[in-house]
Amino acid sequence: MIVTVTLNPALDLTYPVDALVPHRTHRITEVAERAGGKGLNVARVLHALGEPVLATGLLGGPTGDVVAGLLEADGVPDSFTRIAGDTRRTVAVVDQVDATGFWEPGPVVPAAEWSRFVAHFRGLIGEASVVTLCGSLPPGIPIDAYAVLARVAASAGVPVLLDTSGPALRAGLAAGPAIAKPNAAELAALDPDWNAATLRALTSGSVVVTDGAAGLRAITPDAEFRCVPPVPVTGNPTGAGDACAAALARGLRDGTEWPGMLADAVALGAAAVASPVAGAFDPGVYRELRSGIGTC
Amino acid sequence: MIVTVTLNPALDLTYPVDALVPHRTHRITEVAERAGGKGLNVARVLHALGEPVLATGLLGGPTGDVVAGLLEADGVPDSFTRIAGDTRRTVAVVDQVDATGFWEPGPVVPAAEWSRFVAHFRGLIGEASVVTLCGSLPPGIPIDAYAVLARVAASAGVPVLLDTSGPALRAGLAAGPAIAKPNAAELAALDPDWNAATLRALTSGSVVVTDGAAGLRAITPDAEFRCVPPVPVTGNPTGAGDACAAALARGLRDGTEWPGMLADAVALGAAAVASPVAGAFDPGVYRELRSGIGTC
Repeated sequence: MIVTVTLNPALDLTYPVDALVPHRTHRITEVAERAGGKGLNVARVLHALGEPVLATGLLGGPTGDVVAGLLEADGVPDSFTRIAGDTRRTVAVVDQVDATGFWEPGPVVPAAEWSRFVAHFRGLIGEASVVTLCGSLPPGIPIDAYAVLARVAASAGVPVLLDTSGPALRAGLAAGPAIAKPNAAELAALDPDWNAATLRALTSGSVVVTDGAAGLRAITPDAEFRCVPPVPVTGNPTGAGDACAAALARGLRDGTEWPGMLADAVALGAAAVASPVAGAFDPGVYRELRSGIGTC
Repeated sequence: MIVTVTLNPALDLTYPVDALVPHRTHRITEVAERAGGKGLNVARVLHALGEPVLATGLLGGPTGDVVAGLLEADGVPDSFTRIAGDTRRTVAVVDQVDATGFWEPGPVVPAAEWSRFVAHFRGLIGEASVVTLCGSLPPGIPIDAYAVLARVAASAGVPVLLDTSGPALRAGLAAGPAIAKPNAAELAALDPDWNAATLRALTSGSVVVTDGAAGLRAITPDAEFRCVPPVPVTGNPTGAGDACAAALARGLRDGTEWPGMLADAVALGAAAVASPVAGAFDPGVYRELRSGIGTC
């Protein structure tokens, strides 16, 4: 079972408008509500692939209840730690040009709740074949939270996939997750002059860098790989990285060799771009690309 | 007891930002949540004035639960009819220039739920001294809903204050509420060439037109009054009309003569402008203006 950790999930609201006009009132005619957060996208993609998955993390308040209800409707099994604070919302106003985002801060998580989650996670780790640690940390959670969880997983012999940014990424890399999967911008924010040598100094694990249509680059402790989509795919890139993360987590579980694993990640990421909704992918595009890429 | 009817309440979310930039992502650091909708503002103002009030209307879903919790925290007594649909949200993104609004549609209310509310309202009307009918109608509610409720109130001898716009205002006026309180723009949308004679053709009751700093104009079946704030007040005009409505509802209950009632409405409206939050007013400004205006 792949356990996906989402410490800062969200209720994602999408408001379609003709055009966003600052300082006007927009009457929204249709609201899309989705359980959001990178880890939940990973869980949904794995569930859609038919892979056994368990979503865990922190949920609280009435917005947390709504997120739990949406996950249930998606059929994704979950075991969240309930917290006193209210799970955040994100609002995406989508007009004919692009999306404008408003991201609420996560709830403040006191130390006692974080300890309770770590204990809960220790209880789940025995059933896990892989753990994914994805997304931002809500306020109050220690910046080395992912390193703490990665060490719990390591002590149980469970490989970890890490996908976050900023100081949480730097601290998490130090714990040597099997794979860290930043995108190119997140890595550049950490070190604008990064290269294989600087990455290997930051982590004992492998790093897979996603770079949109330029595909994936993997820097392992002793090798490098690249994999590029055979055809350009247009659509909604939100959630494409999460689909890549899902493919890498599955590959970790199955002990897939790097070329096959990267080919699968590229195909699933592109199939996610072809789907209008984050956390979903186009199965036809996936099958087609998967057979077209073979191994990288 | 003044009964305030809010058929389309909302969870009002306010997101402060430095500047709203279309097609960018804005990280919100602080979210203000408020029970919104004109009728709930009227209820809060009356409650703050120490007047016995009961808020009724339609609430549903998890967002409805949050609105009920916020009203409870405000200490406003309520007796809402629960519906299956989810109460709407409004998002106001406030930058240093002005607010940008995103208003979700209300939940679709089936005929059976509307009938259930009318029966509930019939049960409350015996305890009411005045009824306020404020705000928009959610989808599914008949356009003459306020006329239906006004007739229930009339049959119990309870005067009605109506504050809405568009077709709901036109249909409501036909039922002859004691006072209709549109603002100048809402009235112009109904009839750009309105005057006392055309208004008297639309309703057997009185009409109070609010016009911002220009004050109030009352057209009764047999007279006209004007009342202007003695000093300009700057601040947040959102909710000022609702404070006026609260003053008029109290005046209706007490049988206050027009000049005194309008003076109170002008003072309370201006005191609401002086408060940064809709549905609240500055008590000091209110006292000062109230003594300054006397009667109009």
